[in-house]
Amino acid sequence: MSGGLDSTVSCALAKDAGYEIHALTFNYGQRHDIEIESAKKVAKALGVASHKIMDIDLGQIGGSALTDDIEVPKAKTAEDIRTSDEIPPTYVPARNTIFLSIALAWAEVCGAQAIFIGANHLDYSGYPDCRPEFFEAFQGLADLATKAAVEGDKVKIMTPIIDMDKASIVTEGMRLSAPLDLTWSCYNGGQKSCGTCDSCVLRLEGFKGAGYKDPVEYESH
Amino acid sequence: MSGGLDSTVSCALAKDAGYEIHALTFNYGQRHDIEIESAKKVAKALGVASHKIMDIDLGQIGGSALTDDIEVPKAKTAEDIRTSDEIPPTYVPARNTIFLSIALAWAEVCGAQAIFIGANHLDYSGYPDCRPEFFEAFQGLADLATKAAVEGDKVKIMTPIIDMDKASIVTEGMRLSAPLDLTWSCYNGGQKSCGTCDSCVLRLEGFKGAGYKDPVEYESH
Repeated sequence: MSGGLDSTVSCALAKDAGYEIHALTFNYGQRHDIEIESAKKVAKALGVASHKIMDIDLGQIGGSALTDDIEVPKAKTAEDIRTSDEIPPTYVPARNTIFLSIALAWAEVCGAQAIFIGANHLDYSGYPDCRPEFFEAFQGLADLATKAAVEGDKVKIMTPIIDMDKASIVTEGMRLSAPLDLTWSCYNGGQKSCGTCDSCVLRLEGFKGAGYKDPVEYESH
Repeated sequence: MSGGLDSTVSCALAKDAGYEIHALTFNYGQRHDIEIESAKKVAKALGVASHKIMDIDLGQIGGSALTDDIEVPKAKTAEDIRTSDEIPPTYVPARNTIFLSIALAWAEVCGAQAIFIGANHLDYSGYPDCRPEFFEAFQGLADLATKAAVEGDKVKIMTPIIDMDKASIVTEGMRLSAPLDLTWSCYNGGQKSCGTCDSCVLRLEGFKGAGYKDPVEYESH
Protein backbone atom coordinates (compact mmCIF):
# COMPACT_ATOMS: atom_id res chain seq x y z
CA MET A 1 0.00 0.00 0.00
CA SER A 2 1.84 3.02 -1.34
CA GLY A 3 -0.74 5.63 -0.46
CA GLY A 4 -1.55 6.04 -4.15
CA LEU A 5 -4.65 5.39 -6.20
CA ASP A 6 -3.81 1.94 -7.56
CA SER A 7 -2.96 0.21 -4.28
CA THR A 8 -5.95 1.87 -2.59
CA VAL A 9 -8.37 0.53 -5.18
CA SER A 10 -6.67 -2.89 -5.10
CA CYS A 11 -7.09 -2.96 -1.33
CA ALA A 12 -10.76 -1.95 -1.65
CA LEU A 13 -11.23 -4.81 -4.15
CA ALA A 14 -9.57 -7.28 -1.74
CA LYS A 15 -11.85 -6.10 1.04
CA ASP A 16 -14.88 -6.34 -1.26
CA ALA A 17 -13.86 -9.94 -2.05
CA GLY A 18 -14.09 -10.74 1.67
CA TYR A 19 -10.43 -10.76 2.67
CA GLU A 20 -9.24 -9.54 6.05
CA ILE A 21 -6.54 -7.02 5.16
CA HIS A 22 -3.03 -6.87 6.59
CA ALA A 23 -1.66 -3.85 4.78
CA LEU A 24 2.04 -3.54 4.01
CA THR A 25 3.74 -0.25 3.16
CA PHE A 26 7.40 0.16 2.28
CA ASN A 27 9.35 3.09 3.61
CA TYR A 28 12.04 2.57 0.99
CA GLY A 29 13.69 5.95 0.72
CA GLN A 30 11.12 7.51 -1.60
CA ARG A 31 11.54 11.25 -1.54
CA HIS A 32 8.49 12.29 0.41
CA ASP A 33 7.02 11.24 3.75
CA ILE A 34 3.60 12.30 2.52
CA GLU A 35 3.28 8.93 0.73
CA ILE A 36 3.62 7.05 4.02
CA GLU A 37 1.19 9.41 5.75
CA SER A 38 -1.33 8.91 2.95
CA ALA A 39 -0.94 5.13 3.21
CA LYS A 40 -1.67 5.30 6.95
CA LYS A 41 -4.82 7.35 6.39
CA VAL A 42 -6.02 5.07 3.59
CA ALA A 43 -5.38 1.92 5.65
CA LYS A 44 -7.33 3.34 8.57
CA ALA A 45 -10.21 4.45 6.33
CA LEU A 46 -10.40 0.97 4.76
CA GLY A 47 -10.55 -0.64 8.21
CA VAL A 48 -7.55 -2.94 7.83
CA ALA A 49 -6.83 -5.57 10.50
CA SER A 50 -3.20 -4.43 10.70
CA HIS A 51 -0.80 -2.15 8.86
CA LYS A 52 2.94 -2.76 8.79
CA ILE A 53 5.34 -0.03 7.69
CA MET A 54 8.46 -1.89 6.61
CA ASP A 55 11.70 0.10 6.49
CA ILE A 56 14.03 -0.86 3.65
CA ASP A 57 16.28 1.85 2.34
CA LEU A 58 16.62 1.22 -1.39
CA GLY A 59 18.77 4.36 -1.55
CA GLN A 60 21.52 1.95 -0.48
CA ILE A 61 21.15 0.39 -3.94
CA GLY A 62 20.38 3.55 -5.91
CA GLY A 63 19.68 3.79 -9.62
CA SER A 64 16.36 5.63 -9.55
CA ALA A 65 14.98 9.17 -9.64
CA LEU A 66 12.72 8.17 -6.75
CA THR A 67 15.56 7.27 -4.37
CA ASP A 68 18.54 9.09 -5.89
CA ASP A 69 19.29 12.65 -6.88
CA ILE A 70 18.05 12.17 -10.46
CA GLU A 71 15.45 14.57 -11.88
CA VAL A 72 11.83 13.42 -12.06
CA PRO A 73 10.56 13.95 -15.63
CA LYS A 74 7.56 16.16 -16.35
CA ALA A 75 5.32 17.82 -18.91
CA LYS A 76 4.48 14.82 -21.09
CA THR A 77 0.93 13.84 -21.97
CA ALA A 78 -0.71 10.70 -20.63
CA GLU A 79 -0.58 9.27 -24.15
CA ASP A 80 3.18 9.96 -24.34
CA ILE A 81 3.74 8.20 -21.02
CA ARG A 82 1.69 5.16 -22.04
CA THR A 83 3.25 4.74 -25.46
CA SER A 84 6.87 5.56 -24.61
CA ASP A 85 9.33 2.79 -25.39
CA GLU A 86 11.73 4.10 -22.79
CA ILE A 87 11.83 2.97 -19.23
CA PRO A 88 11.49 6.20 -17.24
CA PRO A 89 14.06 7.39 -14.63
CA THR A 90 11.41 6.78 -11.96
CA TYR A 91 11.98 3.05 -12.51
CA VAL A 92 13.43 1.57 -9.29
CA PRO A 93 15.65 -1.49 -9.96
CA ALA A 94 13.80 -4.71 -9.14
CA ARG A 95 11.37 -2.84 -6.90
CA ASN A 96 8.35 -5.10 -7.32
CA THR A 97 10.56 -8.19 -6.99
CA ILE A 98 11.89 -6.89 -3.68
CA PHE A 99 8.49 -5.76 -2.41
CA LEU A 100 6.78 -9.03 -3.34
CA SER A 101 9.60 -11.04 -1.73
CA ILE A 102 9.15 -9.23 1.55
CA ALA A 103 5.37 -9.49 1.24
CA LEU A 104 5.83 -13.23 0.71
CA ALA A 105 7.81 -13.48 3.95
CA TRP A 106 5.20 -11.54 5.85
CA ALA A 107 2.36 -13.52 4.26
CA GLU A 108 4.03 -16.67 5.58
CA VAL A 109 4.41 -15.25 9.09
CA CYS A 110 0.80 -14.04 9.31
CA GLY A 111 -0.72 -16.97 7.40
CA ALA A 112 -2.10 -14.90 4.52
CA GLN A 113 -3.85 -16.61 1.61
CA ALA A 114 -3.12 -13.94 -0.98
CA ILE A 115 -0.93 -10.94 -1.76
CA PHE A 116 -2.72 -8.12 -3.58
CA ILE A 117 -0.57 -5.69 -5.54
CA GLY A 118 -1.83 -2.66 -7.43
CA ALA A 119 0.39 -3.02 -10.47
CA ASN A 120 -0.88 -1.85 -13.82
CA HIS A 121 0.77 -2.53 -17.15
CA LEU A 122 -1.17 -0.10 -19.32
CA ASP A 123 0.06 3.06 -17.64
CA TYR A 124 3.61 1.87 -17.20
CA SER A 125 4.28 -0.39 -20.12
CA GLY A 126 7.95 0.49 -19.74
CA TYR A 127 8.23 -1.00 -16.24
CA PRO A 128 9.22 -4.65 -16.73
CA ASP A 129 8.00 -5.62 -13.25
CA CYS A 130 4.46 -4.40 -13.93
CA ARG A 131 3.78 -6.92 -16.72
CA PRO A 132 1.46 -9.92 -16.28
CA GLU A 133 4.27 -12.35 -17.23
CA PHE A 134 6.40 -10.97 -14.38
CA PHE A 135 3.67 -11.76 -11.86
CA GLU A 136 3.15 -15.23 -13.35
CA ALA A 137 6.86 -15.90 -12.90
CA PHE A 138 6.71 -14.61 -9.33
CA GLN A 139 3.79 -16.94 -8.63
CA GLY A 140 5.90 -19.86 -9.84
CA LEU A 141 8.73 -18.78 -7.56
CA ALA A 142 6.44 -18.24 -4.55
CA ASP A 143 5.08 -21.76 -4.95
CA LEU A 144 8.61 -23.10 -4.33
CA ALA A 145 10.09 -20.50 -1.99
CA THR A 146 8.56 -20.88 1.45
CA LYS A 147 8.01 -23.44 4.16
CA ALA A 148 4.28 -22.63 3.97
CA ALA A 149 4.14 -23.31 0.21
CA VAL A 150 6.04 -26.58 0.53
CA GLU A 151 3.62 -27.65 3.26
CA GLY A 152 0.64 -26.90 1.01
CA ASP A 153 -0.31 -23.34 1.95
CA LYS A 154 0.48 -21.53 -1.27
CA VAL A 155 -0.11 -17.81 -1.37
CA LYS A 156 -1.88 -16.41 -4.41
CA ILE A 157 -0.41 -13.33 -6.12
CA MET A 158 -3.38 -11.12 -7.03
CA THR A 159 -3.16 -8.25 -9.52
CA PRO A 160 -6.78 -7.09 -9.71
CA ILE A 161 -6.19 -3.89 -11.68
CA ILE A 162 -3.41 -5.06 -13.98
CA ASP A 163 -5.51 -4.73 -17.13
CA MET A 164 -7.55 -1.66 -16.15
CA ASP A 165 -7.00 1.80 -17.55
CA LYS A 166 -6.85 4.67 -15.07
CA ALA A 167 -10.47 5.70 -15.70
CA SER A 168 -11.63 2.16 -14.86
CA ILE A 169 -9.52 2.19 -11.70
CA VAL A 170 -11.13 5.46 -10.61
CA THR A 171 -14.59 4.09 -11.47
CA GLU A 172 -13.93 0.96 -9.40
CA GLY A 173 -12.69 3.10 -6.52
CA MET A 174 -15.82 5.25 -6.59
CA ARG A 175 -18.09 2.20 -6.83
CA LEU A 176 -16.45 0.76 -3.70
CA SER A 177 -16.37 4.10 -1.87
CA ALA A 178 -12.59 3.82 -1.56
CA PRO A 179 -11.02 6.85 0.17
CA LEU A 180 -9.55 8.35 -3.01
CA ASP A 181 -9.50 11.76 -1.32
CA LEU A 182 -6.81 10.46 1.06
CA THR A 183 -4.50 9.13 -1.65
CA TRP A 184 -1.32 10.78 -2.92
CA SER A 185 0.09 10.13 -6.39
CA CYS A 186 2.50 13.02 -7.07
CA TYR A 187 6.22 12.19 -7.45
CA ASN A 188 7.15 15.64 -6.13
CA GLY A 189 6.70 16.81 -2.56
CA GLY A 190 4.69 19.89 -1.67
CA GLN A 191 1.49 21.00 0.00
CA LYS A 192 -0.40 20.26 -3.21
CA SER A 193 0.23 17.77 -6.04
CA CYS A 194 2.28 19.26 -8.90
CA GLY A 195 -0.11 18.26 -11.68
CA THR A 196 2.74 17.87 -14.16
CA CYS A 197 4.77 14.75 -13.24
CA ASP A 198 3.94 11.47 -15.03
CA SER A 199 1.99 10.22 -12.04
CA CYS A 200 -0.18 13.36 -11.73
CA VAL A 201 -0.82 13.47 -15.49
CA LEU A 202 -2.04 9.86 -15.54
CA ARG A 203 -4.18 10.37 -12.45
CA LEU A 204 -5.85 13.51 -13.77
CA GLU A 205 -6.64 11.81 -17.05
CA GLY A 206 -8.13 8.90 -15.15
CA PHE A 207 -10.51 11.06 -13.15
CA LYS A 208 -11.47 13.01 -16.27
CA GLY A 209 -12.12 9.80 -18.19
CA ALA A 210 -14.23 8.40 -15.36
CA GLY A 211 -16.25 11.62 -15.18
CA TYR A 212 -15.30 12.59 -11.62
CA LYS A 213 -13.48 15.57 -10.19
CA ASP A 214 -10.20 14.53 -8.53
CA PRO A 215 -10.67 15.33 -4.83
CA VAL A 216 -6.97 16.18 -4.23
CA GLU A 217 -5.61 19.67 -4.77
CA TYR A 218 -3.13 20.62 -7.50
CA GLU A 219 -0.65 23.43 -8.04
CA SER A 220 -1.57 23.48 -11.75
CA HIS A 221 -2.92 21.30 -14.51
CA MET B 1 28.52 -13.00 1.57
CA SER B 2 27.44 -14.04 5.04
CA GLY B 3 30.88 -14.47 6.54
CA GLY B 4 30.35 -18.24 6.60
CA LEU B 5 32.07 -21.09 4.84
CA ASP B 6 29.69 -21.58 1.92
CA SER B 7 29.59 -17.99 0.64
CA THR B 8 33.33 -17.67 1.12
CA VAL B 9 34.03 -20.71 -1.04
CA SER B 10 31.44 -19.55 -3.61
CA CYS B 11 33.17 -16.19 -3.79
CA ALA B 12 36.56 -17.87 -4.19
CA LEU B 13 35.09 -19.93 -7.05
CA ALA B 14 33.72 -16.78 -8.72
CA LYS B 15 37.11 -15.14 -8.42
CA ASP B 16 38.80 -18.27 -9.79
CA ALA B 17 36.42 -18.13 -12.78
CA GLY B 18 37.71 -14.64 -13.55
CA TYR B 19 34.89 -12.48 -12.22
CA GLU B 20 35.53 -9.10 -10.62
CA ILE B 21 33.71 -9.37 -7.30
CA HIS B 22 31.24 -6.88 -5.85
CA ALA B 23 30.40 -8.53 -2.56
CA LEU B 24 27.01 -8.05 -0.91
CA THR B 25 26.35 -8.74 2.76
CA PHE B 26 22.99 -8.38 4.48
CA ASN B 27 22.78 -6.90 7.93
CA TYR B 28 19.31 -8.37 8.41
CA GLY B 29 18.89 -8.56 12.13
CA GLN B 30 20.83 -11.79 12.62
CA ARG B 31 21.74 -12.12 16.25
CA HIS B 32 25.45 -11.50 16.13
CA ASP B 33 27.60 -8.74 14.65
CA ILE B 34 30.45 -11.19 14.38
CA GLU B 35 28.94 -12.48 11.12
CA ILE B 36 29.21 -9.03 9.52
CA GLU B 37 32.74 -8.59 10.84
CA SER B 38 33.75 -11.97 9.43
CA ALA B 39 32.23 -11.04 6.05
CA LYS B 40 34.30 -7.84 5.97
CA LYS B 41 37.51 -9.73 6.73
CA VAL B 42 36.75 -12.40 4.13
CA ALA B 43 35.89 -9.82 1.45
CA LYS B 44 39.14 -7.98 2.10
CA ALA B 45 41.19 -11.19 2.05
CA LEU B 46 39.61 -12.20 -1.27
CA GLY B 47 40.45 -8.81 -2.79
CA VAL B 48 36.93 -7.84 -3.84
CA ALA B 49 36.39 -4.73 -6.01
CA SER B 50 33.71 -3.48 -3.60
CA HIS B 51 31.72 -4.70 -0.61
CA LYS B 52 28.25 -3.42 0.19
CA ILE B 53 26.69 -4.03 3.59
CA MET B 54 22.95 -3.71 3.00
CA ASP B 55 20.78 -3.01 6.04
CA ILE B 56 17.39 -4.73 5.98
CA ASP B 57 15.88 -5.56 9.31
CA LEU B 58 14.01 -8.83 8.82
CA GLY B 59 13.15 -8.70 12.52
CA GLN B 60 10.33 -6.42 11.30
CA ILE B 61 8.85 -9.54 9.66
CA GLY B 62 9.87 -12.10 12.31
CA GLY B 63 9.18 -15.81 12.23
CA SER B 64 12.72 -17.15 12.74
CA ALA B 65 15.09 -18.20 15.51
CA LEU B 66 17.76 -16.12 13.77
CA THR B 67 15.87 -12.83 14.01
CA ASP B 68 13.33 -13.50 16.79
CA ASP B 69 13.55 -14.65 20.35
CA ILE B 70 13.14 -18.34 19.42
CA GLU B 71 15.67 -20.89 20.70
CA VAL B 72 18.35 -22.11 18.28
CA PRO B 73 18.32 -25.94 18.27
CA LYS B 74 21.38 -27.95 19.23
CA ALA B 75 22.97 -31.31 19.92
CA LYS B 76 21.89 -33.23 16.83
CA THR B 77 24.30 -35.09 14.59
CA ALA B 78 25.16 -33.95 11.06
CA GLU B 79 23.26 -37.00 9.76
CA ASP B 80 20.17 -35.98 11.78
CA ILE B 81 20.31 -32.45 10.37
CA ARG B 82 20.68 -33.65 6.79
CA THR B 83 17.93 -36.23 6.92
CA SER B 84 15.39 -34.35 9.01
CA ASP B 85 12.02 -33.86 7.33
CA GLU B 86 11.34 -30.84 9.49
CA ILE B 87 12.19 -27.31 8.48
CA PRO B 88 14.29 -26.02 11.39
CA PRO B 89 13.44 -22.90 13.47
CA THR B 90 16.50 -21.22 11.95
CA TYR B 91 14.54 -21.00 8.68
CA VAL B 92 13.98 -17.30 7.89
CA PRO B 93 10.79 -16.74 5.85
CA ALA B 94 11.60 -16.14 2.18
CA ARG B 95 15.16 -15.13 3.04
CA ASN B 96 16.86 -16.22 -0.16
CA THR B 97 14.02 -14.72 -2.23
CA ILE B 98 14.52 -11.39 -0.49
CA PHE B 99 18.32 -11.52 -0.68
CA LEU B 100 18.34 -12.49 -4.36
CA SER B 101 15.82 -9.75 -5.17
CA ILE B 102 18.02 -7.11 -3.62
CA ALA B 103 21.10 -8.64 -5.25
CA LEU B 104 19.24 -8.44 -8.57
CA ALA B 105 18.62 -4.72 -8.05
CA TRP B 106 22.23 -4.11 -7.19
CA ALA B 107 23.44 -6.27 -10.08
CA GLU B 108 21.41 -4.03 -12.38
CA VAL B 109 22.86 -0.84 -10.90
CA CYS B 110 26.47 -2.02 -11.09
CA GLY B 111 26.12 -3.89 -14.38
CA ALA B 112 26.94 -7.34 -13.00
CA GLN B 113 26.81 -10.38 -15.25
CA ALA B 114 26.14 -12.94 -12.54
CA ILE B 115 24.97 -13.36 -8.96
CA PHE B 116 26.80 -16.04 -7.00
CA ILE B 117 25.04 -17.49 -3.97
CA GLY B 118 26.46 -20.12 -1.63
CA ALA B 119 23.29 -22.15 -1.19
CA ASN B 120 23.58 -25.86 -0.60
CA HIS B 121 20.71 -28.27 -0.68
CA LEU B 122 22.38 -31.30 0.87
CA ASP B 123 22.99 -29.79 4.29
CA TYR B 124 19.67 -27.99 4.49
CA SER B 125 17.28 -30.16 2.59
CA GLY B 126 14.52 -28.69 4.75
CA TYR B 127 15.06 -25.13 3.51
CA PRO B 128 12.79 -24.74 0.47
CA ASP B 129 14.80 -21.79 -0.84
CA CYS B 130 18.04 -23.80 -1.01
CA ARG B 131 16.75 -26.25 -3.62
CA PRO B 132 17.91 -26.20 -7.27
CA GLU B 133 14.31 -25.77 -8.49
CA PHE B 134 13.96 -22.62 -6.42
CA PHE B 135 16.99 -21.06 -8.13
CA GLU B 136 15.73 -22.14 -11.56
CA ALA B 137 12.44 -20.36 -10.83
CA PHE B 138 14.32 -17.29 -9.64
CA GLN B 139 16.33 -17.28 -12.88
CA GLY B 140 13.06 -17.27 -14.82
CA LEU B 141 11.82 -14.35 -12.76
CA ALA B 142 15.08 -12.41 -13.05
CA ASP B 143 14.93 -12.72 -16.83
CA LEU B 144 11.65 -10.77 -16.78
CA ALA B 145 12.09 -8.46 -13.80
CA THR B 146 14.55 -5.72 -14.68
CA LYS B 147 15.16 -3.03 -17.24
CA ALA B 148 18.60 -4.56 -17.86
CA ALA B 149 17.10 -8.01 -18.56
CA VAL B 150 14.47 -6.59 -20.92
CA GLU B 151 17.21 -4.73 -22.78
CA GLY B 152 19.22 -7.94 -23.20
CA ASP B 153 21.60 -7.89 -20.22
CA LYS B 154 20.33 -10.89 -18.29
CA VAL B 155 22.06 -11.72 -15.04
CA LYS B 156 22.97 -15.34 -14.40
CA ILE B 157 22.10 -16.88 -11.04
CA MET B 158 25.09 -19.05 -10.07
CA THR B 159 24.96 -21.71 -7.35
CA PRO B 160 28.42 -23.28 -7.61
CA ILE B 161 28.26 -25.37 -4.42
CA ILE B 162 24.61 -26.41 -4.51
CA ASP B 163 25.37 -30.10 -5.00
CA MET B 164 28.53 -30.32 -2.89
CA ASP B 165 28.70 -31.93 0.51
CA LYS B 166 30.48 -30.00 3.27
CA ALA B 167 33.72 -31.97 2.88
CA SER B 168 33.84 -31.06 -0.82
CA ILE B 169 33.19 -27.42 0.02
CA VAL B 170 36.09 -27.42 2.49
CA THR B 171 38.30 -29.19 -0.08
CA GLU B 172 37.44 -26.57 -2.72
CA GLY B 173 38.14 -23.79 -0.26
CA MET B 174 41.54 -25.25 0.61
CA ARG B 175 42.40 -25.80 -3.07
CA LEU B 176 41.65 -22.11 -3.79
CA SER B 177 43.39 -20.87 -0.62
CA ALA B 178 40.13 -19.25 0.51
CA PRO B 179 40.42 -17.56 3.93
CA LEU B 180 38.49 -20.22 5.82
CA ASP B 181 40.23 -19.15 9.04
CA LEU B 182 38.34 -15.83 8.85
CA THR B 183 34.88 -17.36 8.42
CA TRP B 184 32.20 -17.70 11.10
CA SER B 185 29.50 -20.36 10.97
CA CYS B 186 28.13 -20.59 14.53
CA TYR B 187 24.49 -19.56 15.13
CA ASN B 188 25.34 -18.51 18.67
CA GLY B 189 27.45 -15.51 19.65
CA GLY B 190 30.55 -15.81 21.79
CA GLN B 191 34.30 -15.52 21.68
CA LYS B 192 34.50 -19.03 20.26
CA SER B 193 32.08 -21.08 18.14
CA CYS B 194 29.75 -23.26 20.24
CA GLY B 195 30.46 -26.52 18.42
CA THR B 196 26.93 -27.80 19.07
CA CYS B 197 24.47 -25.81 16.91
CA ASP B 198 23.42 -27.28 13.54
CA SER B 199 25.79 -24.98 11.70
CA CYS B 200 28.84 -25.89 13.83
CA VAL B 201 28.04 -29.62 13.66
CA LEU B 202 27.89 -29.56 9.84
CA ARG B 203 31.03 -27.48 9.57
CA LEU B 204 33.04 -29.72 11.88
CA GLU B 205 31.95 -32.80 9.97
CA GLY B 206 32.98 -31.10 6.72
CA PHE B 207 36.51 -30.37 7.89
CA LYS B 208 36.84 -33.87 9.31
CA GLY B 209 35.61 -35.43 6.05
CA ALA B 210 38.02 -33.31 4.03
CA GLY B 211 40.90 -34.28 6.27
CA TYR B 212 41.72 -30.80 7.57
CA LYS B 213 41.68 -29.27 11.02
CA ASP B 214 39.10 -26.48 11.27
CA PRO B 215 41.15 -23.30 11.90
CA VAL B 216 38.44 -21.62 14.04
CA GLU B 217 38.24 -22.17 17.80
CA TYR B 218 35.41 -24.01 19.54
CA GLU B 219 34.03 -24.09 23.07
CA SER B 220 33.47 -27.82 22.74
CA HIS B 221 32.92 -30.57 20.21
